[in-house]
Amino acid sequence: MQVGFIGLGQMGAGMARNLLKAGHAVTVYNRTPAKADALVAEGAARAATVADACRGEAVVTMLANDQAAEEVVFGPHGLLATLPRGALHVSASTIGVELSERLAAAHGAAGQLYVSAPVFGRPDVAAAGHLFVVAAGAASAIAAAGPLLDAVGQRTFTVSDIPARANLVKLSGNFLIACVIESLGEALALVGKAGIDKTQYLDLLTSTLFGAPVYKNYGRLLAEPGDAPVGFAAPLGLKDIKLALSAAEALGVPLPLASLLRDRFVTLLATGGADQDWSAIGRLAARDSGQS
Amino acid sequence: MQVGFIGLGQMGAGMARNLLKAGHAVTVYNRTPAKADALVAEGAARAATVADACRGEAVVTMLANDQAAEEVVFGPHGLLATLPRGALHVSASTIGVELSERLAAAHGAAGQLYVSAPVFGRPDVAAAGHLFVVAAGAASAIAAAGPLLDAVGQRTFTVSDIPARANLVKLSGNFLIACVIESLGEALALVGKAGIDKTQYLDLLTSTLFGAPVYKNYGRLLAEPGDAPVGFAAPLGLKDIKLALSAAEALGVPLPLASLLRDRFVTLLATGGADQDWSAIGRLAARDSGQS
Amino acid sequence: MQVGFIGLGQMGAGMARNLLKAGHAVTVYNRTPAKADALVAEGAARAATVADACRGEAVVTMLANDQAAEEVVFGPHGLLATLPRGALHVSASTIGVELSERLAAAHGAAGQLYVSAPVFGRPDVAAAGHLFVVAAGAASAIAAAGPLLDAVGQRTFTVSDIPARANLVKLSGNFLIACVIESLGEALALVGKAGIDKTQYLDLLTSTLFGAPVYKNYGRLLAEPGDAPVGFAAPLGLKDIKLALSAAEALGVPLPLASLLRDRFVTLLATGGADQDWSAIGRLAARDSGQS
Amino acid sequence: MQVGFIGLGQMGAGMARNLLKAGHAVTVYNRTPAKADALVAEGAARAATVADACRGEAVVTMLANDQAAEEVVFGPHGLLATLPRGALHVSASTIGVELSERLAAAHGAAGQLYVSAPVFGRPDVAAAGHLFVVAAGAASAIAAAGPLLDAVGQRTFTVSDIPARANLVKLSGNFLIACVIESLGEALALVGKAGIDKTQYLDLLTSTLFGAPVYKNYGRLLAEPGDAPVGFAAPLGLKDIKLALSAAEALGVPLPLASLLRDRFVTLLATGGADQDWSAIGRLAARDSGQS
Repeated sequence: MQVGFIGLGQMGAGMARNLLKAGHAVTVYNRTPAKADALVAEGAARAATVADACRGEAVVTMLANDQAAEEVVFGPHGLLATLPRGALHVSASTIGVELSERLAAAHGAAGQLYVSAPVFGRPDVAAAGHLFVVAAGAASAIAAAGPLLDAVGQRTFTVSDIPARANLVKLSGNFLIACVIESLGEALALVGKAGIDKTQYLDLLTSTLFGAPVYKNYGRLLAEPGDAPVGFAAPLGLKDIKLALSAAEALGVPLPLASLLRDRFVTLLATGGADQDWSAIGRLAARDSGQS
Repeated sequence: MQVGFIGLGQMGAGMARNLLKAGHAVTVYNRTPAKADALVAEGAARAATVADACRGEAVVTMLANDQAAEEVVFGPHGLLATLPRGALHVSASTIGVELSERLAAAHGAAGQLYVSAPVFGRPDVAAAGHLFVVAAGAASAIAAAGPLLDAVGQRTFTVSDIPARANLVKLSGNFLIACVIESLGEALALVGKAGIDKTQYLDLLTSTLFGAPVYKNYGRLLAEPGDAPVGFAAPLGLKDIKLALSAAEALGVPLPLASLLRDRFVTLLATGGADQDWSAIGRLAARDSGQS
Repeated sequence: MQVGFIGLGQMGAGMARNLLKAGHAVTVYNRTPAKADALVAEGAARAATVADACRGEAVVTMLANDQAAEEVVFGPHGLLATLPRGALHVSASTIGVELSERLAAAHGAAGQLYVSAPVFGRPDVAAAGHLFVVAAGAASAIAAAGPLLDAVGQRTFTVSDIPARANLVKLSGNFLIACVIESLGEALALVGKAGIDKTQYLDLLTSTLFGAPVYKNYGRLLAEPGDAPVGFAAPLGLKDIKLALSAAEALGVPLPLASLLRDRFVTLLATGGADQDWSAIGRLAARDSGQS
Repeated sequence: MQVGFIGLGQMGAGMARNLLKAGHAVTVYNRTPAKADALVAEGAARAATVADACRGEAVVTMLANDQAAEEVVFGPHGLLATLPRGALHVSASTIGVELSERLAAAHGAAGQLYVSAPVFGRPDVAAAGHLFVVAAGAASAIAAAGPLLDAVGQRTFTVSDIPARANLVKLSGNFLIACVIESLGEALALVGKAGIDKTQYLDLLTSTLFGAPVYKNYGRLLAEPGDAPVGFAAPLGLKDIKLALSAAEALGVPLPLASLLRDRFVTLLATGGADQDWSAIGRLAARDSGQS
């Protein structure tokens, strides 16, 4: 397909590359142009503006937050104004439910197709094309997006014909991951202060009831002595928990665990953690117990 | 081995049966004698008193709480007074760290061996002999306990030569399970109120990042409409979270998630849930969001 | 002074009336015009539009939330566009810090004076002219606002020359009040369930260490059997706690009590309390303890 | 009256002195005898044992925690064994509801009178005889205790004929004070980080809605730069919050604020605050916001 790709951060670059590898004609755009260089060297066309990335059959956006997505779509010469009627917008960014609803309405009014397709996986998973894709949208739009989603992920879950529901599922998933980080952080602070070997402890957990990737990966990050590599920055973690809280409030659902996580992120950012991986909230329990 | 077994509740009955099946000579005791009938019919000897179960090489205890364990061990004609020097006490109950430390000291002073060996798994898992055993104690005691632990579980993790550390690991594990229940409960309240199919949602979670038994089992219990079968009663869940908080306080470790879980259990018990499975705390988020 | 007054809700009507009584020439505006009738009968001039209320030396706004304040100020023919250079805007609404900062900047650029002057007190206090006013702004603006603030309140506290700091103080004050409500609610649930007379208990508290109006007023509302009269609606309480959390996040300050209060308000609104006084969050502890 | 006084800590010494001043014949006992020296010099008789303090018409106990009270009452040659039939025990210690119920039952069985009479006030207030006394017990016991309670406090509130209810009221009161400390701590962290003068801010609060001693006293302690003098040690604060949680659990009342406070105390003790005044929990919000 003739497809534009907007947003070449750690996640987007890997996804765009996998679209290229799958044989699609990809035109890439990033606000900081240098981030497109490698992809252009590998065969992508360079778009000088957002509008230049919107001339084909589809455009995929992978942006850091609601504000960036809103500007790219609703801004002058943005995606809404330039994407042809009948063309497709695949929004892979982790954005809020409310913005996703506005995108759906605006694209519908403009005669454009819209699929909300946020993804699960850290940058190395995106590079490997092994993301899990959570998709929602009209059946025709989902069908049109199929070849693109297949190229970036190992499996697509279509959860609804209402696009914003994919965003809610994604946000709830990040909430659940953050719960794992926090709970592991507390458990490790506890057993660690008692003198139990953390790595052996995690091996016990993940060999038994907790044998899921999320426990293995974040357990390893938390048990190791130094800071974790930044796969997902702490401010983005705060953003997602806030989006989950906001969506939950709109639906009338209290999420006390999310409130606790929000406080953890605010504390982390206020005490020197703004540049760390979001898993660093899992070290605050140890700090509060006087272990660091 | 000549082994006594004290405590024939949902968990203990299955464990005692697997000791019998493995060829051990098992003498069983339960405060309510009728609970021993089936096992006696299958070949176990019946003990009329705690002391009668303590004449062999070893005794296994599987009791509901610290108070029961304390009485059985320290009471008149209890385990401490009657178990021969050099014989072994395997404490499989989920008891507190502080009591386990007292047991270790008392057995040591009496020249008895002591292994703390709490287990992970619900009654059906105990019946199948597929428990995970977390063991700690002196090497000689662990060695002596080996044939018994092999008979009741699929795998034994030896975590320390200090018995109480096994209890801490067990309590931290139950804490982590309760975190899964609560987090799933909140996530399901959220997506459920948005109209997303809960079973499909759980399939997505457990097919991707959350593919662990604890998510599958408790997710299913929470997504189904009726009350869950009582595999582990809510008051026992409260007991374990309190034991975790108590151990954590003694070590100087704040556990905010455990505090939140404690409040959930108190709420559940105060609003009609005393007879329910502990997973019922995972339905309180839905209640607080007006869904039931 | 020639003063406009925009926003004639429960609070604003009383404040506007006290400006009239103090001898000011008051032109009133409300989106629902009928709410102005009584004041017009008492001598106020009626403004047909926001702009019509902005022809004098000053305008006071008392609006329900950020959105209303933003529209009235920044909207077409709004306050910013129509208020003369050198004239004064007194913003008495409980709005967010971020919006107050934008108002300050915009008024400054337009050569208009701006005082942020949120107030403490429920509608009966506003009617009596006994509000406490928290004011901030440039000295010249504060001086100009003096006669107006004196008319609506019993005392004005000038906290800073930076207007938004008054909003932060006001939001922190509402946070503290909500903490009193929640803590009294929990204490009353506790002693009430033990059979202690609630009224006698509150008398003990307020005769000793807790002899402040906020304990007396909210204690009485919580101890009485029926719903409290709606002096400050629950959705406004949620709004204020969220504004406090938002301001705190921007400053890098975690407020765990505010997070807990936010969850209480979401729960209240989701379970039938949207039309109640905000003090109804103080009844949730009793509900969670099975008392209602 | 002929009265014994057991427990001459910061609080007890002042109370015993006021009994002396009121003309009672006071026999004092303290585990560390040197603490009795000053009172003996002022006219008190010295008791060499607990039993020696129990020969008169009444004995007042003011002990640090449940364990100390339990030993003094139930221990060999303790109060229960030595106090004459018809004599009175006034328990002024802040002990748990459960222990107070056991004391009431034991004294009743021994034909002794029992009044539970915990007090509100820090050591300077005890020294001045201005404590508030919360009393409960049988009418005859309350009457007998009258002269003693009058001597130590400025006012006695008789809340019930069931002694343990006084303890519940006292514990709920300390819970409410701790809520004030925590909420002020969060509010001060917020306005302080925004550059608002803390002392001026507190003056505003306590001149308006929060004009109660508890806000004035703890606000001042929190706003001052150095550590507060230790009027009530942090471990005792933790003890009281735990007793409140325990009483609430027994009654089936969740207290989420108390859970949060418990975590604060555990954090404080784990990070160097074991020797500080309990108001130091109010500085943790500032710490978590990077201000110290």
